[in-house]
Formats: sequence, C-alpha cells, structure tokens
Amino acid sequence: MRIGALEAGGTKMVCAVVEEGQVTERISLPTRSPAETMPEIIEYFAAQQVEALGVGSFGPLDLDRNSPTWGYITATPKDGWRFYDLAGELQRALDIPVALDTDVNCAALGEARFGSCVGLDDCVYITVGTGIGMGVLCGGRLIHGMQHPELGHIPVAPVFGDNYQGCCPYHGRCLEGMASGSALRGRWGIPAQEMADRPEVWQLEAEYLAQGIVTCILAYAPRRIVLGGGVAHQPQLLPLVRAAVTRQLAGYVSTEVVKDMDSYIVAPALNDNQALLGCYELVRDPSVQG
Amino acid sequence: MRIGALEAGGTKMVCAVVEEGQVTERISLPTRSPAETMPEIIEYFAAQQVEALGVGSFGPLDLDRNSPTWGYITATPKDGWRFYDLAGELQRALDIPVALDTDVNCAALGEARFGSCVGLDDCVYITVGTGIGMGVLCGGRLIHGMQHPELGHIPVAPVFGDNYQGCCPYHGRCLEGMASGSALRGRWGIPAQEMADRPEVWQLEAEYLAQGIVTCILAYAPRRIVLGGGVAHQPQLLPLVRAAVTRQLAGYVSTEVVKDMDSYIVAPALNDNQALLGCYELVRDPSVQG
Repeated sequence: MRIGALEAGGTKMVCAVVEEGQVTERISLPTRSPAETMPEIIEYFAAQQVEALGVGSFGPLDLDRNSPTWGYITATPKDGWRFYDLAGELQRALDIPVALDTDVNCAALGEARFGSCVGLDDCVYITVGTGIGMGVLCGGRLIHGMQHPELGHIPVAPVFGDNYQGCCPYHGRCLEGMASGSALRGRWGIPAQEMADRPEVWQLEAEYLAQGIVTCILAYAPRRIVLGGGVAHQPQLLPLVRAAVTRQLAGYVSTEVVKDMDSYIVAPALNDNQALLGCYELVRDPSVQG
Repeated sequence: MRIGALEAGGTKMVCAVVEEGQVTERISLPTRSPAETMPEIIEYFAAQQVEALGVGSFGPLDLDRNSPTWGYITATPKDGWRFYDLAGELQRALDIPVALDTDVNCAALGEARFGSCVGLDDCVYITVGTGIGMGVLCGGRLIHGMQHPELGHIPVAPVFGDNYQGCCPYHGRCLEGMASGSALRGRWGIPAQEMADRPEVWQLEAEYLAQGIVTCILAYAPRRIVLGGGVAHQPQLLPLVRAAVTRQLAGYVSTEVVKDMDSYIVAPALNDNQALLGCYELVRDPSVQG
C-alpha cells in the first residue's frame, strides 16, 4: 500500500510517500499561507497516487471525533492557519481517507514502531526546538482527551540563581518559556548552536528539561523517553539530562527500567523520519488512536 | 453479582459489598501489619460470599501484567507492606478473581461511572489529604505504563514570598511537599481544619493545587476534574482553585469545557464511596484496565 505522510510544521511542510515502513519519496515545502501552500501539498500527493494520507501537524488541533470541527488546526497564532480545516481540505481535494494527529504524537508512534522504542506500548517523544512538545503513546494508544497533550507549557520551578523571566507569551516561566530554543536565545543572547562549549548553558538547560521529564514519568510512567529536536542535537545535553532526572526523581520511582537511565532516555533513531513513519502508522493501524 | 470491594489505605481498610452499583455492606478496619489485618479482611469477604474482588490500594503498586510481582505493593515506607503481595494473598485465600488498581484510579473510575463524571471517558480524580494523589481515566481506560500515575510528586514553582521548604521526604518542594495536608500543617503549624477563616492559607493552597491541575490538563486533557480528599472538604477552596487554574492557563487551553470552569473542576459526588464503586467497576468491566 502506498501511503502519503504529511508532517505539517510552522516552518516547513514535509510531504512523503511511505511503503512498507520505508520513506520512498520526500519533498519539503516552505509553510506560507494555506492559499499558497495547500495547493502544492495537494498537487504532490495527487501526483504520487497515494491511497490514504496520514498527517502529523502542529497544533493545537481538534482531534475530538464527536466535534463538528474535528481535523481543524485551532487557536494557533500562525497567520492564516487559525481555525483552518486541515484534514477536511485534504480529504475533499484528494478524495482519500485522511488520519490526523499532532506532529509529536506521530513522532512518538514512529519511534515506537520503527525506531528507538520498538516493542514498547508506553513511550514519550519530546522535541526541544523553537518550542517544546511531547507526544505520548500509553497502553499502545496515543493520548487524547478533550484535546491532546500540551506538555510544553507545564509549570517548572525556577533554578536557584536563574533570573530569566521566560519567553512564553502565555505563561512566562513555563517549561517552554525556560528551556526551548527561543528561551536559550533569550536568556543568553546567542543561538544555542553557538554555545556548545559553555557547560553552564547545558547544565541549566538539563535542569529544566529534567523537570519536564520527571513530570512526564510521574504522569505516564513511560517505558522509554526519546529526546529529539534541534536543541537536543547538542551531544553534551543527553548525559546531563539523564543525571538531572535521576537526581530529581530522588529514588521515588525506582523501577528497573528507570535505574538503567542510559537506556531509558535516548536519542531518536530515525534520522528525522519519525513523524512521517508515525503518519504512516496512523493510517495502517487506526486502533492506535483509540 | 455480589462483588467485594476493598479500599486499602495506609490508615484504614474499607471492605464492602457492591451489588448492581450500590454499596450494600461496608466495614472499616484499622490498617495494622499484614499479619494482623489481612486475616480480618479475608474473613470478612469469605463470610460475605463475594464472587470476585476489586481492590483499590495505596501504592506504589506493580500493575504490570507481565511482571512476576504483579499485584504487589512495592516501595512503600509503610511497615510490613513493603513488597507485599496484596492481590496474590487475597486471591489465594479467597480463591476468587481479584482485580487491582490504585485507590485514586479506582476513585476516578467510580466518579466516571456513577458520580460527577458520568458519561465521560476522560476524567481525573485528585485527592488532597495527608498526601496528594491523582487517578486518571483517559479514552475510557485507566492510565498505566511501567507503573501508574504518581502526580502528587510533580515539580511546582514556589509562589512568590512563600519560603516554606516543603515536607516531601523525597523532593522537598514538589506538589505534595507544598500543598498536602501535611504541608499545610508544616507551613502554618496548625491543622488545616482549624484555619478555615484564614483566607491567605487557602489562596496559597489554591495557587499550588492549580499548578497541579494545570499540569494534569496539559498532560491528559480531561473533560472534567474532581477535587476530593480531606483538605478539599474546605468549601472555600474550590472557587479559589477554579480562579487560579483559569489565571494560570492564561487562555492557552480554551476549549468550551474549560471555559465553563464551574462545571470543569467539581467536588466528588459519591459520599466517599467513589473508590469502592471503582473497585466494583474494575471487576465488572475489565476492559477499563486496557
């Protein structure tokens, strides 16, 4: 089966074809307005003759099957995409089945089925880039309630001595406000990739990310956590995060999998294809959406 | 069907019989050592001739069906109950099927099926007593991963001007360390119920509980949240918590159900029978455990 996969981001739209768990075609388009970008996406998938389409999108999304606006991007600040019927437009234009979830839920699903969490029904994918997002597979299903997880915005305790006021326009000093790529730039005045040799930057970053990870361990009890995204590409970060999580948990959660921290918090394994492969899985195995 | 329900707490063991969703018999025993208390529990349920038993217990619990220690209470500080095979002992002694989950997951389930969340597949029950616990029903299933939610211990940001160092022996200033009944007593030096007329006590309490609730909204997107437990019996608390949650969310989650905050965060409805009725449901509808 020839399945289309769309990773819809605020900066770029990655369109791909996935066959038998392999990405066989792939293009990237800049995200402009729906009027400019949607025809390009539709043209691509129509030409590729895909039989169904899985979409992993930036949010927030309405994923409530009983809602009249299921499939919409909802309250995004992104121009033109606010309350935009993403799944509906694609479905009507292509006349094929369309499945939709968040980009990070798709990334978690891709890692669970093809990457660093194969065989696990309980895992979390965290992306630390311009913002922070978490996707959650729990009991073999992607987590949804009235909407989807939005763990980037959880409260964190300021680290002693850190007076940065946070960059989140909603919450100031939430996790994203203190530890996203935007926060790194705001706090230090320099892009993250230019601070690789400054240990104080990464120690502080690890302290905040560890708080987010501790919350996610206490909330979902995942069997493995994947730390991805541009900021997490810094190789010095992962060992610092593991150490900070162990210290912050303070022995409270002490299962065997948590004790083996090097296997518990890991890097992504799919060369930035995890969300596309998750889109494919959404179509191939609809039970994962509950 | 005559189903036994055991709410196993650190202070008392509530044993009951539930028939067609009604608690028809009920006793309470003090929790002493397993050697003293377990024979009393077993004698009660044997005499009541129940056909199956649902147990909602204090934790942490091993709820992993693939684990050799499924059904055990694990790393509790409670004398005699550490690594105790609770479900196994009951099953062997009574020779009937035994289902087990956390006390708070059972309370969430009871409220979902019989109480203030009837008809909802996504809800959270929070108990604020000596400690803080949260039970979570998500997509019609109780949340489990490698273990169960332990949201009492999530990080929170200290409220400006509050210098209390927290009472959690593991984490100091986590949610439980700052907002449990023990924390109230530790911070103010007086039991909670004797401070009903001090608004500063409850405003501060609401600020911390709201952080916990905001995290739980961002993690699970529940359709309703039930705030129970001894501390939450203070009637002035609930309106303060609702206001603090609205302020802290800052419009970031703005679904219709969240806008109607009086219906979104509510008091329990089952007169302290929610966990017992959840135990009954565990037996009646095993699919809820996934």
